[in-house]
Amino acid sequence: MLLEALYHVPRDKWAYAYDVKTIHLRFRTKRDDVAEVHALTGDKYNWGGTFQELPMEKAAHDGMFDYWEVDVRPRYKRLAYAFKLSSGNETVYMLDTGIQHEPPAPPGELFEFSYIHEIDVFKVPEWVKQAVFYQIMPERFANGDPSNDPDTVEPWGGKPTRLNFFGGDLKGVLDHLDYLSELGINAIYFTPLFVAPSNHKYDTVDYKLVDPHFGTNETLRELVEACHKVGIRVVLDAVFNHSGEHFPPFQDVLKNGEKSKYRDWFHINQFPPEVKDGIPSYDTFGFFGNMPKFNTANPEVKQYLLGVAEYWIREIKLDGWRLDVANEVDHHFWRDFRQVVKQANPEAYIIGEVWSDSLNWLLGDQFDSVMNYPFADKVLEFFCGGMDGYNFSNEMGSLIMRYPQQTNEVVFNMLCSHDTPRLLTRVGNDKRKLKLCVVFLFTYIGTPCIFYGDEVGILGDSDPDCRKCMEWDQTKQDRELHDFYKLMIHLRKQHNALRQGRFRFLQATSNDPCIVYERLDDKMHFTVWMNNTDKPRTLSHPMETEDWRDALSNEIVKPKNKMMNISLDPFAFRILYRHLT
Amino acid sequence: MLLEALYHVPRDKWAYAYDVKTIHLRFRTKRDDVAEVHALTGDKYNWGGTFQELPMEKAAHDGMFDYWEVDVRPRYKRLAYAFKLSSGNETVYMLDTGIQHEPPAPPGELFEFSYIHEIDVFKVPEWVKQAVFYQIMPERFANGDPSNDPDTVEPWGGKPTRLNFFGGDLKGVLDHLDYLSELGINAIYFTPLFVAPSNHKYDTVDYKLVDPHFGTNETLRELVEACHKVGIRVVLDAVFNHSGEHFPPFQDVLKNGEKSKYRDWFHINQFPPEVKDGIPSYDTFGFFGNMPKFNTANPEVKQYLLGVAEYWIREIKLDGWRLDVANEVDHHFWRDFRQVVKQANPEAYIIGEVWSDSLNWLLGDQFDSVMNYPFADKVLEFFCGGMDGYNFSNEMGSLIMRYPQQTNEVVFNMLCSHDTPRLLTRVGNDKRKLKLCVVFLFTYIGTPCIFYGDEVGILGDSDPDCRKCMEWDQTKQDRELHDFYKLMIHLRKQHNALRQGRFRFLQATSNDPCIVYERLDDKMHFTVWMNNTDKPRTLSHPMETEDWRDALSNEIVKPKNKMMNISLDPFAFRILYRHLT
Repeated sequence: MLLEALYHVPRDKWAYAYDVKTIHLRFRTKRDDVAEVHALTGDKYNWGGTFQELPMEKAAHDGMFDYWEVDVRPRYKRLAYAFKLSSGNETVYMLDTGIQHEPPAPPGELFEFSYIHEIDVFKVPEWVKQAVFYQIMPERFANGDPSNDPDTVEPWGGKPTRLNFFGGDLKGVLDHLDYLSELGINAIYFTPLFVAPSNHKYDTVDYKLVDPHFGTNETLRELVEACHKVGIRVVLDAVFNHSGEHFPPFQDVLKNGEKSKYRDWFHINQFPPEVKDGIPSYDTFGFFGNMPKFNTANPEVKQYLLGVAEYWIREIKLDGWRLDVANEVDHHFWRDFRQVVKQANPEAYIIGEVWSDSLNWLLGDQFDSVMNYPFADKVLEFFCGGMDGYNFSNEMGSLIMRYPQQTNEVVFNMLCSHDTPRLLTRVGNDKRKLKLCVVFLFTYIGTPCIFYGDEVGILGDSDPDCRKCMEWDQTKQDRELHDFYKLMIHLRKQHNALRQGRFRFLQATSNDPCIVYERLDDKMHFTVWMNNTDKPRTLSHPMETEDWRDALSNEIVKPKNKMMNISLDPFAFRILYRHLT
Repeated sequence: MLLEALYHVPRDKWAYAYDVKTIHLRFRTKRDDVAEVHALTGDKYNWGGTFQELPMEKAAHDGMFDYWEVDVRPRYKRLAYAFKLSSGNETVYMLDTGIQHEPPAPPGELFEFSYIHEIDVFKVPEWVKQAVFYQIMPERFANGDPSNDPDTVEPWGGKPTRLNFFGGDLKGVLDHLDYLSELGINAIYFTPLFVAPSNHKYDTVDYKLVDPHFGTNETLRELVEACHKVGIRVVLDAVFNHSGEHFPPFQDVLKNGEKSKYRDWFHINQFPPEVKDGIPSYDTFGFFGNMPKFNTANPEVKQYLLGVAEYWIREIKLDGWRLDVANEVDHHFWRDFRQVVKQANPEAYIIGEVWSDSLNWLLGDQFDSVMNYPFADKVLEFFCGGMDGYNFSNEMGSLIMRYPQQTNEVVFNMLCSHDTPRLLTRVGNDKRKLKLCVVFLFTYIGTPCIFYGDEVGILGDSDPDCRKCMEWDQTKQDRELHDFYKLMIHLRKQHNALRQGRFRFLQATSNDPCIVYERLDDKMHFTVWMNNTDKPRTLSHPMETEDWRDALSNEIVKPKNKMMNISLDPFAFRILYRHLT
């Protein structure tokens, strides 16, 4: 047994309350090195009377490690525990005090999950587990009211630059709610809507006013009401890391310098605030002088921004906030933010924009979820031929083990966004590959999000090219692709197994980019077969039962001699299902 | 290189802000496996312009791993980083995305410490780094006012039981301040003082009133004032996990059941609250029906208890709180507790009673420190002959790597307490071994605490035997031991190197319980030599310079041919020093 590979700490994603009755424990061993792991559990004040030895299950693996999990339901909310590892005739124990070969002598030296406090339990909104998101940049989705267009508006469908405008607005979204409803999505994430000079509006000037080029606060209220009527939730973008340079308090600092009553609203390192040789004398987003960073530790700033967060929840019954540059804002701020937001709407969804490991914000006291950029990267890499099945299963296992289960159930999975090239462009304009990505997205763990227009085949390189206008001319839309998205959305929405069922790779081997995986709950069992190569392939896997059907055509598909053989064209897939009850 | 042994996560004790300018990074490798570790660092928005490759130092080791550390001072408060490991001609990189053999392609895939926010930086009180604590159980320290004795008081010095009383009180402490001052301690930790029926007073009845058998609130105020006058700080015991059964709100629940307005102050699982077959129908400390657990998530309870915490800080200028059963109280409570306490007294010291891994509470938002029971256990085990130097150095290394440096600087190190057998008893009544423990305590990292009476040789088994009356009859005190404690306290107080200097084992080998270690800052260099065997031993270690003196006798001690040879009686020690400036 490789002892150096063993890992557990009594906190964060390794030991956490999943709900008020259940503690999840995780344990790590070297891959394929340990035959059995047991959790030795009990109450430290009555170990003998409460002791249980619970077998742990291999829940995931990556290239180096196996990850074991078990649910423990302690009788008195308190848990003391250790781990017992067996391989051949070797038995090893891991305790709070380290690794040893003798059984522990409880109650001393055990790990502890001291007490399950409901207030500390990480709760995420139930609706997000059922959600399919659609991301909209209002300036580029639809122009419903030409009367509010900027003076410099260009004809719809032109080439996007960093600075130009096409007149998209909220009325445009309202006009196309039918389109969205029919597509089947049930949640929208809007990039910023509030007054700002840019087309992307990440340089806010007024946090309580919808940008006049997008409409009015009243338009927004109507839009959200209309969305709610057809079962679509709405999440807005909170740009609380920085304001725009035209934000009045920053203008006041520019004007009055050290005498400004807003001087401590920002991080001014040297007065006067200015940009010299590309380096601002105040903290900013990146090195952009037009995006001065907020001092979120200043109680006035905190009160102002938390007031904004609460205002929109109450005013328009907002369903959640996506937090821009969330990792550069302080933790005290986000803790208070969660309290304010969840008090205003206990079902509000909080998604942070964090590109790297985000566990720091996902312990129950800050965010519910993050934008899962690493997911996008790995899925794209795999379906663009950069990885075999073995490595792909490792990467997915590694991502699942990054966060507690609560987050995994609602992690914001997308394949592209306004900050990356478009999906179809990323897969080299190969629709077959795009479909494999989309099938994976809609049959995997987490909450999927579609970037507006991906479903009709819009191409686009990095920002600004990925921010093209939505294509509304049906003759120019890829309708086949559109219907495929619709089908996948409906399939996911129809079956809990695809949303919350257990996920497992059935085939994911070295030097082979083809994969087979399953998802199942107590009602349904799905298997997904993917030929991720440019040649026809027949994938085979043993199947005990004969009751399989194709999930898209409903055709009966039978194994031969308990072996299922699925013949697939290059970059084709098939989804099978059977009923369990 | 054993890749499975490599470990880093971009959070908690592995990556944290030490102060507003400095980030500490730690990295783990298999012991003696990797020759060099470098941190590759920069700003993610300008990697090229800020890149630095920083060598890391081996800061500690345990039986399995080496731990590497480096201080990074990013120019713009933001840090992106990766690690580069070299051994022979093998080079490996560790990034946010995992381990790879190719150099990273920044700024993607790097670890991030997104931004140093002052509000999130973990700050501990400076005075604690200079402190030597003395723990007092008021009922057992001195009887200064017989008029407030309980009716059942027994003669001073009798055999302690779980229930009896000896009449100790606050006046007794006041009367002996000279004794404490002369001993040299500069901080007192009192076990609970407030109204409670027991002798230990962990079953509080009134949180705002000093127990009448101990004196009055006025006596306490006078005592703290007198302490402050002679430079002694005072820390009280906050019993906020549970109250006593006679606490009026709990009495109200007993009387009025579900109709009590205090019903949600506790965790009543079933009405009426009662104890059946030893199991209370309400949550308690352990299974003790007379210690009902507070519902600290209830805003009324929180307000009440935080009010108590603040009250005593303001009323008597209290210097800190020790938190009883701290791990069983919710994290939201402790976060608010820290804010209230530090607002009332920014220099207040917060020590949690947590017996196992406590990192969850030591990330800057809850406690400053914990009672270091694992330290006591390992030191005792070592000096009682249960361990060789090699394993002892591993255990100490492992403890140091448990927490961020801020906590290590003020971790509450003790060798025994009111909850364990007495030190002298634990070392088998062998004063020589006791002295080795004490020398180690006073020359090691962290804030030392003496349990009242240990310094005059009081023996005592587990509670209640460890809670004997203080011995005030000088003819019965071990005065030699007393003077030894005094000497060690003064030595530590005199030299910053012994408090905050770098610690390193110079000798700590397998099958040999003798050790040599050093501590040094930029002014002084100490070496400590310990013969932890029952035979005379000469310990030798190379020493470059000739300027050593004995720290207790001031005698000159010279190496021979650059080799220092120290002859020691069984269980004897020697402390040498030299000036560096």
